[in-house]
Amino acid sequence: MLELRLVQGSLLKKVLEAIKDLVNDANFDCSATGFSLQAMDSSHVALVALLLRSEGFEHYRCDKNISMGMNLGNMSKMLKCAGNDDIITIKADDGSDTVTFMFESPTQDKISDFEMKLMDIDSEHLGIPEAEYHAIVRMPSAEFARICKDLASIGDTVVISVTKEGVKFSTRGDIGTANIVLRQNTTVDKPEEATIIEMNEPVSLTFALRYMNSFTKATPLSNTVTISLSSELPVVVEYKIAEMGYVRFYLAPKIEEDEDETKPQV
Amino acid sequence: MLELRLVQGSLLKKVLEAIKDLVNDANFDCSATGFSLQAMDSSHVALVALLLRSEGFEHYRCDKNISMGMNLGNMSKMLKCAGNDDIITIKADDGSDTVTFMFESPTQDKISDFEMKLMDIDSEHLGIPEAEYHAIVRMPSAEFARICKDLASIGDTVVISVTKEGVKFSTRGDIGTANIVLRQNTTVDKPEEATIIEMNEPVSLTFALRYMNSFTKATPLSNTVTISLSSELPVVVEYKIAEMGYVRFYLAPKIEEDEDETKPQV
Amino acid sequence: MLELRLVQGSLLKKVLEAIKDLVNDANFDCSATGFSLQAMDSSHVALVALLLRSEGFEHYRCDKNISMGMNLGNMSKMLKCAGNDDIITIKADDGSDTVTFMFESPTQDKISDFEMKLMDIDSEHLGIPEAEYHAIVRMPSAEFARICKDLASIGDTVVISVTKEGVKFSTRGDIGTANIVLRQNTTVDKPEEATIIEMNEPVSLTFALRYMNSFTKATPLSNTVTISLSSELPVVVEYKIAEMGYVRFYLAPKIEEDEDETKPQV
Repeated sequence: MLELRLVQGSLLKKVLEAIKDLVNDANFDCSATGFSLQAMDSSHVALVALLLRSEGFEHYRCDKNISMGMNLGNMSKMLKCAGNDDIITIKADDGSDTVTFMFESPTQDKISDFEMKLMDIDSEHLGIPEAEYHAIVRMPSAEFARICKDLASIGDTVVISVTKEGVKFSTRGDIGTANIVLRQNTTVDKPEEATIIEMNEPVSLTFALRYMNSFTKATPLSNTVTISLSSELPVVVEYKIAEMGYVRFYLAPKIEEDEDETKPQV
Repeated sequence: MLELRLVQGSLLKKVLEAIKDLVNDANFDCSATGFSLQAMDSSHVALVALLLRSEGFEHYRCDKNISMGMNLGNMSKMLKCAGNDDIITIKADDGSDTVTFMFESPTQDKISDFEMKLMDIDSEHLGIPEAEYHAIVRMPSAEFARICKDLASIGDTVVISVTKEGVKFSTRGDIGTANIVLRQNTTVDKPEEATIIEMNEPVSLTFALRYMNSFTKATPLSNTVTISLSSELPVVVEYKIAEMGYVRFYLAPKIEEDEDETKPQV
Repeated sequence: MLELRLVQGSLLKKVLEAIKDLVNDANFDCSATGFSLQAMDSSHVALVALLLRSEGFEHYRCDKNISMGMNLGNMSKMLKCAGNDDIITIKADDGSDTVTFMFESPTQDKISDFEMKLMDIDSEHLGIPEAEYHAIVRMPSAEFARICKDLASIGDTVVISVTKEGVKFSTRGDIGTANIVLRQNTTVDKPEEATIIEMNEPVSLTFALRYMNSFTKATPLSNTVTISLSSELPVVVEYKIAEMGYVRFYLAPKIEEDEDETKPQV
C-alpha cells in the first residue's frame, strides 16, 4: 500500500516537465526515505536523479520498497490535468499494475482520479559517489537558462570556464563567436540573485548545449541552480526543490581536440 | 432594409469565434424578433442554434423577414477587423446580394465598412421541441472547458453521469482512465462559480469529446454553461449571451456497446 | 578604430527587428555624423534608410569613414542575446574583418562579447532628394499596423486616399471589400494618439500590402508613423527613433489599370 499526499501538487507537475523530454520511461523508487528516480536519457548520455524526501509530503505511507515503471510522457499528460493549486496524492495497491493520481481542488469541490498502467522497465541503479569538485557555481536559474538558450543560437557546444573572478560561457559557430562572463556577486538585494563561486582550482570544460538546454526545463523548480565542475567528472547541474529534495542532471564533458578549429576554444 | 446596431460589438465577434469551426456556411435569419441562426455542423452530427433578440440591439430595423447565407469563415475574418470596443452595425438593402458590417470606434474617429457577398444556402429549419430533461447541470463555463480539454488528452469519449451529489466526467484511453467529479456547490462567493444540479432521475450518457471541445469555443460568451441531459434526447450545451439570447449546441449521445472494452464504462 | 556605445541598447535590437525581414545583407556606414544604412529589399522593390546620429550615443568614436557589410539575420541573432536593459557597444578595429557587439547588464555583473564576421557587399548609395509631398499623414503607429494587418486578411493591395477630412484605406478581395476611414483628430489627450493631416492636394495611391506589413515591423520603435504621399513619388513611411534618427521605408505606388477589376478602386 502506497499513499503519498503532496499539498503543493504543482511541484510534481514541474518535476515532470523538467525531465519528461530527456527520459521516456523510468522507474520511480519508493521507500520510507522518499520518492526518487534515477534514469539515463534516451541516448544514454545524460543522467537524471530526482529525490522527493518523505518529510516533504503531508502524508507519506509506503509499506515496503517498491519500484514503479512509468512512461513519463503519459504521466505528464495526466499531471497536466491537475490544477496548479491542487493537492496531488499518488496511490498504489500492493501488487497492482496501475498507479492512481488523485487531484483535489483547494475547495474540495473537484476531485479527479487518473489511473495509469505501470510498465516493466529494466534499469540498474548507478551508485553516484560523493565527489570533490574543482569549482561550484551557484547562480540564478533563469540567467543560466537564458545563457544556454542564447549560446545555442550561435553554436552547438559551450565551454564553461571558472576563475576566481567569475564564470565564462563561450561558444563558436558559423556566424561567429560568443563569450558571456558573469562576475562573482554576493552583494545583491535578494540572495537568489547572487552569483557565488567556490573554487579550488580553475576549470574549463566543454559540453553539448542541446543537453544543457534540456536541463534548464527544470528552471521553474528553483530560483537558483548549482553547477559543480571537475575536469575528470561529469558536471552536475542541480535544481533544489524547496525543503523536499532536488533534481540533478549529470553530463560528461566533451573531449576537446586541439586541432579541431570548429570546436570552441577557451 | 436591414439595420442592426449592436453597441457591444465584441459579442458578435465572440459568437462567430464560437461557431465558425463547427459550421462553414449558414443562413442568418432576421425577423422582428431577432437575429438568429440554426445549422448542422459540417459532418451533420451536431446542431447549433443562435439567438440575438432584437431588444438587445441599440437600433433594430428589419422591414421584412430575410434569410442571409454567409460563409462563417469569411464573416469571422471581417469581424476580426473590428476593435473589441467597437460598435458593430449589420446593414443590408432589400434584394441586395451583399451585407455590410460597419465598425465605429468609441471615439468615432475610425469608421470601417466591410462588405461581404451573400451565398445561396439550402437549409431546412428543424423544429426543436421543448423537452423535459432528466438532469440539468449549471457550472462555470471555464471549468467545463478545462474538463473537456483534460479528458481529450486521455480518451475520445466522455461519460457524463449525474447524481444528486454531483456530476462525474469519465474517459478511458490507451494510457489509462480518468474520472473527474464535481460536487454540487451553491454556497460560493460569486454566483457564477456555483455548480448547481437539478435532477429528476440519475442519468449517464456518452459523448464524443471532439464535439464537446468544439462547443467550448463559446466559453468567452458566458461565465456559466448549462448542460441538459436526458437518456432519449440530444444533450443541450447552452451559453447565455447577456440579456440578448444564447448559443445552444445539440449532440446525440453515443450508444454504448457493453462488450466494447475500448469505450469508457460508467 | 570604431567604438559606439549606446546606453539604450534595446533601440538597436528594435531596429534590427524592423528591417531584418526586408533586407538580408547590407552595409552599415559609419562616419562622424552617425551610423546609417541604406538598402533595397531582397526583391528590389522597397528601400530602407536608417540613421542613428552620433549625438544619440553615449560615446561615439569613428576615426575614419567605414562601411561594414553584415548579414542582418545573423546580426539579429546576436542582438537577441542582449537584455532589453543592456548597454550595447559596437566595436571594430581598422582593417578587421569582424565586428564585435558588447552587451553590459545594468549592474555590470554580466558582460557579453559577440563577434561576427563581416561580408563584402556591393551596393550603390542612392541619392534621395528632398521632395514636396501632396499629403503627409501622421498617425499612431499601432493603428497603422492594425489597419495594414486587417486589410491583408481581405485583399493584396491598399488604396490610400487623403482628403482634408481624413485618410481612407481600402482593399478588395475574393470575399468582399473593406474601407477604413480615419478622421483628422488633433484634440486628443495624448499627442501620440493624434491623426494629423497636412494636405496640399488630394491624393489616392495603391500599394502592395505585403510591403506595408513588413514596414510595420518598425512599430515598436515609435508611437507615431508619418506617411508622405505624392502621385509621382514613392511613399515614405517614417518611424522616428527618439532623439537619434529614423527608419524610413520607400515604396513605389502600383499603377492602376482602369480595366482591371481585381484591383481595388478608390
